[in-house]
Amino acid sequence: MKPQGGSTRPQGVAAPDPQRLSLNTATTKERWGLAQAIEGCARHGIRGISPWRDQLQAMGVAQAAAAIRAHGLTVTGLCRGGLFPAATAALRAAAIADNLRAVEEAHAIGAQCLVLVVGGLPEGSRDLAGAREQVREGIAAVLPAARAAGVPLAIEPLHPMYAADRACVNTLAQALDLCEALDPQGVQGPVALGVAVDVYHVWWDPQLEAQIARAGRRVLAHHICDWRVQTRDLLTDRGMMGDGVIDLPRIRGWVRATGYAGFDEVEIFSALDWWTRDPDEVLAVCKERHQRCC
Amino acid sequence: MKPQGGSTRPQGVAAPDPQRLSLNTATTKERWGLAQAIEGCARHGIRGISPWRDQLQAMGVAQAAAAIRAHGLTVTGLCRGGLFPAATAALRAAAIADNLRAVEEAHAIGAQCLVLVVGGLPEGSRDLAGAREQVREGIAAVLPAARAAGVPLAIEPLHPMYAADRACVNTLAQALDLCEALDPQGVQGPVALGVAVDVYHVWWDPQLEAQIARAGRRVLAHHICDWRVQTRDLLTDRGMMGDGVIDLPRIRGWVRATGYAGFDEVEIFSALDWWTRDPDEVLAVCKERHQRCC
Repeated sequence: MKPQGGSTRPQGVAAPDPQRLSLNTATTKERWGLAQAIEGCARHGIRGISPWRDQLQAMGVAQAAAAIRAHGLTVTGLCRGGLFPAATAALRAAAIADNLRAVEEAHAIGAQCLVLVVGGLPEGSRDLAGAREQVREGIAAVLPAARAAGVPLAIEPLHPMYAADRACVNTLAQALDLCEALDPQGVQGPVALGVAVDVYHVWWDPQLEAQIARAGRRVLAHHICDWRVQTRDLLTDRGMMGDGVIDLPRIRGWVRATGYAGFDEVEIFSALDWWTRDPDEVLAVCKERHQRCC
Repeated sequence: MKPQGGSTRPQGVAAPDPQRLSLNTATTKERWGLAQAIEGCARHGIRGISPWRDQLQAMGVAQAAAAIRAHGLTVTGLCRGGLFPAATAALRAAAIADNLRAVEEAHAIGAQCLVLVVGGLPEGSRDLAGAREQVREGIAAVLPAARAAGVPLAIEPLHPMYAADRACVNTLAQALDLCEALDPQGVQGPVALGVAVDVYHVWWDPQLEAQIARAGRRVLAHHICDWRVQTRDLLTDRGMMGDGVIDLPRIRGWVRATGYAGFDEVEIFSALDWWTRDPDEVLAVCKERHQRCC
């Protein structure tokens, strides 16, 4: 694979709008706190941001909301709710309570959605079907508050390599089954439960095109990065757009065809490369690759 | 996860038959050639073996066939054909020619199937749909010879984390779509194109139970190992049965419910652990875990 290469943009897929690029702060988390990330986005003309809760709490929710507002940034999501399965009822209730707090935080910063990384197997368990049932129960318990707050929940199907320890929802089809069961109203009215389409997690799926089309209005977020060959670590070796094998323009075309007019959100876990660099350099590269490789 | 733990065997699932355990020689490849693996299986009372082509060629096909016959071992598969996608027509033709040789080798050693690891993206390509089409064309080209030789081809869906560089068939559903399209005769008559169900690759699949049931008579092999938490390497950190989170008895029950009466084949890539041990120890542990954890 030629480094920094780009796929040809399919006919009918418009070039990415630089005003619709968002920074997921996981991308810069090793060097920047949230205040720096907000200022960095403003400085680079990146108009969207998606913070993580630990950084949000470290900065203070009210202060973060004020800084985001002052710079006119769009909050494309809050990362993350979820992590529902647990070995005891008390732990599951605590997870739901934490998700309710996350809904409040998402509302306070005007986030377009609360991203759910749903959780994997409880400690010591091999019961994948049971974990998936606990996810369903957890989302069902949080959904009324999310609906009331006007903060839709975005289930992020995670790559199957994370099924055990991070998220046991592993395909768009599985996520959409949950959406349709728990939020049937979302077919016509406002979507309370939708999906985050992160190319890293779903690019391999033989059903990808069909399931994105099925998602339709339930696409609440579109995350971008790339799949490196070789991938050196299961968690922290994501590539910058153009450095891997994902056909980003094609997938973006499928996402746009649903009517999704939101942001392309860059989220890169990269202990071996991008986390080691000056975040100002990282943001400049993100902007350039977004234009050239998506 | 408690090490060496086992899941409870679901009601109605019989205990594994120790006479139906097979050794995939990848498990011992760092220390044993094929001749040693054949003798090791005989010594430990393991009645099945599944060699890799490099080891088979190193020993000599005729010599290997004679040694396997002398010990009365069942050859549960030959690993591996496939690797069809390539950047040029000449390379694709060479891959097909190599698969035809693999069919001959499988026939010569009386293998119950030729396992296909179908191949990933050609060098420099991001065209996943195109690679999948090349896989279809490659299998279609090899299938008549396989049928004539009485060596069924077993498509092994590989975990999605290998979609780029090893196999772009990543779910049982996708493999079975290919089987039904290319080998419609297999519904009634002898199966020429089926699947290898390797728990490592498919355990996470929300459709797993349904797709195993759909496979029916097309289940040609059942490979076992375990998924470690944490997994330290994408390729060579598989676990011994019982050391991970896969519900092995449940999946074995689904496989048996199709009517599959073949072997459970242990295949463990483990540079960090099992490859470093004395293969006689590894085989003893395989036997014990097969009985206790499957």
